[in-house]
Amino acid sequence: MTRLFEAAVANVGPLHTEALVDATVLHDRLTKPRGALGRLEPLGVQLAGIAGVCPPPLPVPAAVAVFAGDHGVLAQGVSPWPQEVTAQMVANFCAGGAAINVIARQTGARVVVVDVGVATTLEDAPGLLRRNVRRGTADFTTAPAMSLDEARAALDVGAEVAADLVAGGATCLVTGEMGIGNTTPAAALIAALTGRPPAEVTGRGTGIDDATLAHKVAVVERGLARHAEAVAAGPLATLAALGGLEIAALVGFVVGGAAARVPVVVDGVIADAALLVAARLAPGVLAFCVAGHRSSEPGATAVLDHLRLDPLLDLGLRLGEGSGACLALPVVEAAARVLREMATFDSAGVSEK
Amino acid sequence: MTRLFEAAVANVGPLHTEALVDATVLHDRLTKPRGALGRLEPLGVQLAGIAGVCPPPLPVPAAVAVFAGDHGVLAQGVSPWPQEVTAQMVANFCAGGAAINVIARQTGARVVVVDVGVATTLEDAPGLLRRNVRRGTADFTTAPAMSLDEARAALDVGAEVAADLVAGGATCLVTGEMGIGNTTPAAALIAALTGRPPAEVTGRGTGIDDATLAHKVAVVERGLARHAEAVAAGPLATLAALGGLEIAALVGFVVGGAAARVPVVVDGVIADAALLVAARLAPGVLAFCVAGHRSSEPGATAVLDHLRLDPLLDLGLRLGEGSGACLALPVVEAAARVLREMATFDSAGVSEK
Repeated sequence: MTRLFEAAVANVGPLHTEALVDATVLHDRLTKPRGALGRLEPLGVQLAGIAGVCPPPLPVPAAVAVFAGDHGVLAQGVSPWPQEVTAQMVANFCAGGAAINVIARQTGARVVVVDVGVATTLEDAPGLLRRNVRRGTADFTTAPAMSLDEARAALDVGAEVAADLVAGGATCLVTGEMGIGNTTPAAALIAALTGRPPAEVTGRGTGIDDATLAHKVAVVERGLARHAEAVAAGPLATLAALGGLEIAALVGFVVGGAAARVPVVVDGVIADAALLVAARLAPGVLAFCVAGHRSSEPGATAVLDHLRLDPLLDLGLRLGEGSGACLALPVVEAAARVLREMATFDSAGVSEK
Repeated sequence: MTRLFEAAVANVGPLHTEALVDATVLHDRLTKPRGALGRLEPLGVQLAGIAGVCPPPLPVPAAVAVFAGDHGVLAQGVSPWPQEVTAQMVANFCAGGAAINVIARQTGARVVVVDVGVATTLEDAPGLLRRNVRRGTADFTTAPAMSLDEARAALDVGAEVAADLVAGGATCLVTGEMGIGNTTPAAALIAALTGRPPAEVTGRGTGIDDATLAHKVAVVERGLARHAEAVAAGPLATLAALGGLEIAALVGFVVGGAAARVPVVVDGVIADAALLVAARLAPGVLAFCVAGHRSSEPGATAVLDHLRLDPLLDLGLRLGEGSGACLALPVVEAAARVLREMATFDSAGVSEK
């Protein structure tokens, strides 16, 4: 049986050249000085290239998938929050009370919550997809976070959720996640895949103090030292050794969205770490991705620089859940709308310079 | 008779302290790490302080006022676009085909177009308010752009429009403008009121070449030299000598919005120049303003730095019309919504660190 993730990788195609050209030409006919809409212009061109038609369809309705997982490395004391908060926040997402719910409601986006690696058994709740691959990762300072097969299963979960959301009518996907402690595996992956030292890419996450930050950097360094062989073996082995189940699912989700030819709006540092892996496994995905925002976590900027992505928003958010990416959706929508709705110089009878 | 603008200046009060405190305390009870929503948090606190209630009301529906005016200094060759484009774009705004119409429709904001200083007679059109004070300013290199009385009349127009929009149900105002050549008076005002040299605050506007930019800087320098006495006399005389009718109306609009206690989302370099004048005439207005975006015009950054404002968006826009500010409205709305709709640690049963 072909695995869903492998099939998605094979289905990631190039942007549609004719639509890219058409959108570029159209932008220069709209009633505004050339280039005056800044980032909205290349973004609209990208949307046309993704959809293969100009003007591009509206990226509405969007869907946010919040992948949840726990992390064995939490035992090393990298976060002041207890592991039980992951499951509690899953319940909060399903009840509609978290930041991502509020922002998604505002933008008309659907939220699905996916248990791909929560440590505790979750109660049934509306909008919860049960796709648990393993009840939390192992502590990467003592063992690989997960096996290669578990990583592959989580990749499949992400690809499946992306395909199902698009089949269900979503025209734009937003990456979301929850996992107490997950800025630690994200930092480890980012250090491993960008070659930057852990001290440069490890941040304060939910807001730890200097001593805990120094300890967290040391934990990331130990993980990298222990799994040097896996890192040398390539991105999949690196993901399994140092990652998280929700991070692996996000890799699959990004690739699945690109394979389904919809824009994928990428959130903060956890999603950025996943994007780094996705871009190694399927480089073509980057053309389908929009960096929604720049998280205040240093690892986020390391990834954005490494992948040469310019985020739409830079508002100092460091919450995750998909909140920053979801907040960027109106900008993505506006980029499509100006191409669909603005008058041209000819149609409006406006003189040119 | 008390002039509308003077009455508005007198009505600008302080933010509501109790609501500010309540919103700050509430933010720390919501299900997220403290500060994790970045700029949304102080923005939500500001909205509470403006409205005098926590949680603050949604800034929906918003209204955009696009003030239009022409500029005598265009005769100096500061822009490649003909003056007739101002009137043509007014028709485009009224027909719903410009960028500001598209973005306003997306965000549910109403657009009104105000002829405060267009040089040509405009045909009737839906949504057009006729408040023409003068058919374009004089060329400021040879005379004051307008008289003090004309400036006062334009200030009144802006204050009137703000009050009418709020009375009509707008809970948030967005500054908009149109005027071929108006980055030149904006640069002159910014140089005069920040003390920066014209070469630092004069930009390419719609996209002029190096030679035209050098000429534009020289034109601004000549205006400043000619009207040094007016600049020394204070902000109102400076506005009359170097400004524009739509810029003066924007000053009145900002003050009128603050007097009506609604948030005023400020657009790019033209609105920034107006805000600089407004802040001198009524310093309390700044607490009611939100810098919607950073225009790519250098004068915009000069004003934001001078007033210590941190814009919400930085997307390289340089179109004006209110487009960047309108694009920021969903961020302002989200700042209010998280305070209104997010669960608290207690209500959601989420453990704290």
